[in-house]
Amino acid sequence: MTKPPKGRVGRANSLVDSYENLAARPGFLIRRLHQIHVALFLEECRQFNVTPVQYSILTTLRDGEPDQTSIANKVGMDLATTTHVLKRLEDRRWLTRTPNPSDRRQRIVRLTGLGARMLTEVDVCAKRAHERTVDQLGGKDRERFIASLAQLVEANNQYSRAPIKLS
Amino acid sequence: MTKPPKGRVGRANSLVDSYENLAARPGFLIRRLHQIHVALFLEECRQFNVTPVQYSILTTLRDGEPDQTSIANKVGMDLATTTHVLKRLEDRRWLTRTPNPSDRRQRIVRLTGLGARMLTEVDVCAKRAHERTVDQLGGKDRERFIASLAQLVEANNQYSRAPIKLS
Repeated sequence: MTKPPKGRVGRANSLVDSYENLAARPGFLIRRLHQIHVALFLEECRQFNVTPVQYSILTTLRDGEPDQTSIANKVGMDLATTTHVLKRLEDRRWLTRTPNPSDRRQRIVRLTGLGARMLTEVDVCAKRAHERTVDQLGGKDRERFIASLAQLVEANNQYSRAPIKLS
Repeated sequence: MTKPPKGRVGRANSLVDSYENLAARPGFLIRRLHQIHVALFLEECRQFNVTPVQYSILTTLRDGEPDQTSIANKVGMDLATTTHVLKRLEDRRWLTRTPNPSDRRQRIVRLTGLGARMLTEVDVCAKRAHERTVDQLGGKDRERFIASLAQLVEANNQYSRAPIKLS
């Protein structure tokens, strides 16, 4: 299907060959890499018992006090799932959800002092997980890979079930 | 973080900038691209009501009659989830699961005639979904992207919760 990068020709080829079509499929590889990232994240951040999605959501609270819909739009998740995650983080006292006086259907979400302190610590282990996910690629290949990921995610944003909407 | 590929500089930059850190994180981008691929797959294959994971599993049956554990190992999923998916496909009469005479704890899985015919048709829409997932990248970037994906998936295989095991 494709030329593996230098230095890994043998191994990459052997995986592709032994799978025939399966490992050549972008969607299959993306699912696997997502699984791998989640596992690395849970391992690196196990002392905080926090998931990648919880972390994504928490970081949207850093620079403001968004409502739940804005958070869902920012992280590309549906509102029901986002609300469920927020409730769990509220139970742990990492954030508060208070009714928006100007729109009763909305809740404003704020990091608590505890949440802000935890988030600063989680940043460190999360960064390690993100790095480990791609650190088998050399510097230039890694940059190119992340740029391609960003390009595909942006170009196909509207096709996902919960597109990202930036206000 | 990284130079976006030519021709998309403006758009790629604007997404990264407006997200600050979030869109620069490999894990976040991988989750989004996985969501996008699933949505494209469900759209392309909606007439068959089949998911990417069901398709991955079905294609492992093409060249043999594996047991359920071998299938789980091939697609990188845990046995419980794999068995659940297989039962649903059995309900639809796309495959059979029969006890293995030489190991009562195992079941041998076989495509039915109906399943084989459906799979040939699903191949076509699945291919379109896989292509659409990466077709915003130019030919060379696309090859390089898929090679990098394969490299990362292989190198980090052991970190995932359900590593791929090739017999």
